[in-house]
Amino acid sequence: MKKLLVIGIGAGDPDFLTLQAVKAIARADVFLVLDKGEEKNDLTRLRQELLAAHARPGHRVVEAADPERDRAAAPAAYAAAVGDWRSRRADLYQGFVRDEIAADGVGALLVWGDPSLYDSTIAAVEQVLAHGEVRFEYSVVPGISCVSALAAAHRVPLNRVGRPFTVTTGRRLAETAAADVPDDVAVMLDAHDAYAGLAEPDAFTIYWGAYVGTPDELLLSGPVGEVAPTIQRVRAEARARKGWIMETYLLRRTDG
Amino acid sequence: MKKLLVIGIGAGDPDFLTLQAVKAIARADVFLVLDKGEEKNDLTRLRQELLAAHARPGHRVVEAADPERDRAAAPAAYAAAVGDWRSRRADLYQGFVRDEIAADGVGALLVWGDPSLYDSTIAAVEQVLAHGEVRFEYSVVPGISCVSALAAAHRVPLNRVGRPFTVTTGRRLAETAAADVPDDVAVMLDAHDAYAGLAEPDAFTIYWGAYVGTPDELLLSGPVGEVAPTIQRVRAEARARKGWIMETYLLRRTDG
Repeated sequence: MKKLLVIGIGAGDPDFLTLQAVKAIARADVFLVLDKGEEKNDLTRLRQELLAAHARPGHRVVEAADPERDRAAAPAAYAAAVGDWRSRRADLYQGFVRDEIAADGVGALLVWGDPSLYDSTIAAVEQVLAHGEVRFEYSVVPGISCVSALAAAHRVPLNRVGRPFTVTTGRRLAETAAADVPDDVAVMLDAHDAYAGLAEPDAFTIYWGAYVGTPDELLLSGPVGEVAPTIQRVRAEARARKGWIMETYLLRRTDG
Repeated sequence: MKKLLVIGIGAGDPDFLTLQAVKAIARADVFLVLDKGEEKNDLTRLRQELLAAHARPGHRVVEAADPERDRAAAPAAYAAAVGDWRSRRADLYQGFVRDEIAADGVGALLVWGDPSLYDSTIAAVEQVLAHGEVRFEYSVVPGISCVSALAAAHRVPLNRVGRPFTVTTGRRLAETAAADVPDDVAVMLDAHDAYAGLAEPDAFTIYWGAYVGTPDELLLSGPVGEVAPTIQRVRAEARARKGWIMETYLLRRTDG
């Protein structure tokens, strides 16, 4: 039976790789690598380093263009736009399993961060399985998420004792009424500085990080009302300088 | 300056260790290991394996009894009970830094899972720093949390496209009104089968796991109304057999 490995490689530091991921990379005959456009230089270099360090001699790398995604979709059309994009990803994966993995071979997909958190790979692979045209087994290797990496870099817990912790998107945060913003919330995929639009900026401390775990790491923290302008400036400068940004932040409501 | 490393070792599989954690373990001169009572045999064996595989020759291990915690505290006294326990932990850490780490030496605390998620180590270390009696630097190495490990084992994403994801405790879940249970929520520290008390058991799918990533791994999933009795039985048997249980589950509300 063909085997597909969905391998979380962690978010940032090449040393976020787990021993399980190292072993999984060493098992694979062939890797599918998707070209992500502007983020290409940095992420491609990281993947090349990981494969050079851990992949078996003679492994193959198949490159493909990541399907374009309609990032300008209106909020109501967001899930549909992601669904369409995921279907085209599923087509790519199906072709990879069918054409590139040998009958008893092992193929791998490297996933930035943790495949279980705000990533479409598992859903797209399930779509290929459900489609039923190619038969294969697959397994998932967890990775260090950007949220865990952020918390470690700031040396802060994600939750407070016995209390819940939420992960959400910048888009969702921007739509949430002030009173409904969770007390402890990590925000991913925020392209529009949603923290700066909080109705109660002085009620929250922000722990912000970009390129966490890499030599470009940027960390800023403080009351949102005080540090939001600095974060916006640093973020815009970094984004202009590197051509892309990968950031996460934690918001913690002040008790009392 | 003395250096303290708070090292997340992942939850379950020894191969959840990251390369960063491997390097951190190899840097340390001395480790503080807390005796956890009934969980001792399995967790002690795991730590011994990790140290045998990765610690430098000549490293020392200091053992201490983990302070007793009042687990029977009423909900209102829960945070206070944890706070008291954390202070006694902080005293232990302070003694470790003061007495066991040399002036320019490196000491380490190994933390199960991810130090940022439902773990008191960071808060206790911050308490030692704030106390000001011993001077030291410290850093945190993120780990694979039991939540990431669970999601990978079940091959399910934690969140749905563009939607939030929550982590909470069994105690909190039991106190939450049916309509307020988040659509996608991972539950930790549930000693009382809170899933079985959900007011709308057929509105949720559960992905349950115990000892995930270990040879004793148990995985069950399905509509809560159907599988809850099976999970309760399997859980009780496992707990009786091993003397302790480490479990996590994800609840996903059915759309529509």
